[in-house]
Amino acid sequence: MIGVFDSGIGGLTVLKELLRRLPGYRFIYFGDTARTPYGTKSPETIIRYALEDTEFLLRHGARVIVVACHSASSVATEALKAHFPEIPIFEVVTPSVERALAVTRRKVIGVIGTRATIESRVYERLLTERDPGVKVYGRACPLLVPLVEEGWLNKPETRMIVKKCLLPLKMRGIDTLILGCTHYPVLRKVIAAKAGRRVTMVDPAEEVAERVRAYVEENAPPPLEKDGEPLIFVSDFTPAFEEVARLFLGRRVKLLKAEDAPV
Amino acid sequence: MIGVFDSGIGGLTVLKELLRRLPGYRFIYFGDTARTPYGTKSPETIIRYALEDTEFLLRHGARVIVVACHSASSVATEALKAHFPEIPIFEVVTPSVERALAVTRRKVIGVIGTRATIESRVYERLLTERDPGVKVYGRACPLLVPLVEEGWLNKPETRMIVKKCLLPLKMRGIDTLILGCTHYPVLRKVIAAKAGRRVTMVDPAEEVAERVRAYVEENAPPPLEKDGEPLIFVSDFTPAFEEVARLFLGRRVKLLKAEDAPV
Repeated sequence: MIGVFDSGIGGLTVLKELLRRLPGYRFIYFGDTARTPYGTKSPETIIRYALEDTEFLLRHGARVIVVACHSASSVATEALKAHFPEIPIFEVVTPSVERALAVTRRKVIGVIGTRATIESRVYERLLTERDPGVKVYGRACPLLVPLVEEGWLNKPETRMIVKKCLLPLKMRGIDTLILGCTHYPVLRKVIAAKAGRRVTMVDPAEEVAERVRAYVEENAPPPLEKDGEPLIFVSDFTPAFEEVARLFLGRRVKLLKAEDAPV
Repeated sequence: MIGVFDSGIGGLTVLKELLRRLPGYRFIYFGDTARTPYGTKSPETIIRYALEDTEFLLRHGARVIVVACHSASSVATEALKAHFPEIPIFEVVTPSVERALAVTRRKVIGVIGTRATIESRVYERLLTERDPGVKVYGRACPLLVPLVEEGWLNKPETRMIVKKCLLPLKMRGIDTLILGCTHYPVLRKVIAAKAGRRVTMVDPAEEVAERVRAYVEENAPPPLEKDGEPLIFVSDFTPAFEEVARLFLGRRVKLLKAEDAPV
């Protein structure tokens, strides 16, 4: 069973890509909706939450962990690997870094994300470690998450805010843009339009799903029964969450309140 | 000692009004920044958090509790009074209701707030219980909180979003508007401008502070020493919180990380 966790339901964009690539495998998802969002919180708090979320998934039978949350991927991956050395742990940052380096033409890469992700400078560090000649420009866009959660996907205000967010990156001449937050793939069209045709989008949900697919297909045969419905747990439930979840997963979804969620 | 809690640092708008009215009294504030916001979460979760926050304040010596959070005031006040029957508990909803009824001319009252506050219909219920002839129109404006927290107080996008938020209320002909969220007083100018001159603003921070002042002055003499600095605890600390806190309190503020915060 493959376990996926996120600070909330945005990580369903990652689960969506996994389901597409790995039909027949069993998935369990945990969205920490009782403590969402992580992106505004401190590294220590994010690390503690990530450890607790992983424990929840392992307790429910997960044998592979996918960190769908960019804030947790950025600040908690090392702690997770140290605490759970025998568990394969995938996160959304490294695959996107490698993809961005593969597609950039002029080696000028932009990253957008929450405040925690951008301030951690994790993308900058990993990109320049692999290629010291690359220039990286990060930009925190915290307003995009609430806009997505309100379903304001293509409103004039959303387009204005996306434009304002991307402006400093465009002025730096980026040719590649990493969508460094689970929610952003839902805004991909607006972001791509405002970034301009010559900027290549890197969607971490697709990149991490590709890695997990390669690993899982090599290491574990798919289970015979194909009941296929993923278990989707949340630490807090509201009908609004179910509405937004549909947006991220691309189909109707039943959220289960996790009675033994970390709190 | 007077204890004030909120889902985050927005409740400092309430503390600001209390400090102005009660110099010489001792205050302790708890902002649950590790689990903020409450407004998107379920009533059960909000009630649990409110009980834990109150326990934190009592443990640190508070003898009067002020619920600065509208979501918690709306859904958790009864549970708080039942759990702590001997503690005077003030909340931000009732005083605003009474004020709105006192100032409305045509008995058409608007309320803006988070999704939890508006969906609880608590303002509507309390207003019509007191005056069945009053018409109440609620409107959830969840985007205003992140706009304030980004410091986007008077940007074109903020004005557009405020305008769009108020439009259905204006079409109903409201003459009074309750600012049903701790963050909104910071946007008061923009909101008042978009609401129009003939709409009277009701600021719950001012109203609850007035009630607490009346109660405290009658029941407890101010302490002799006037060191006056309130203790402001948070369950999670980031430098960004301190920046935003300054916005709400109207002056520089030191936030203390609460080591024994509920988690």
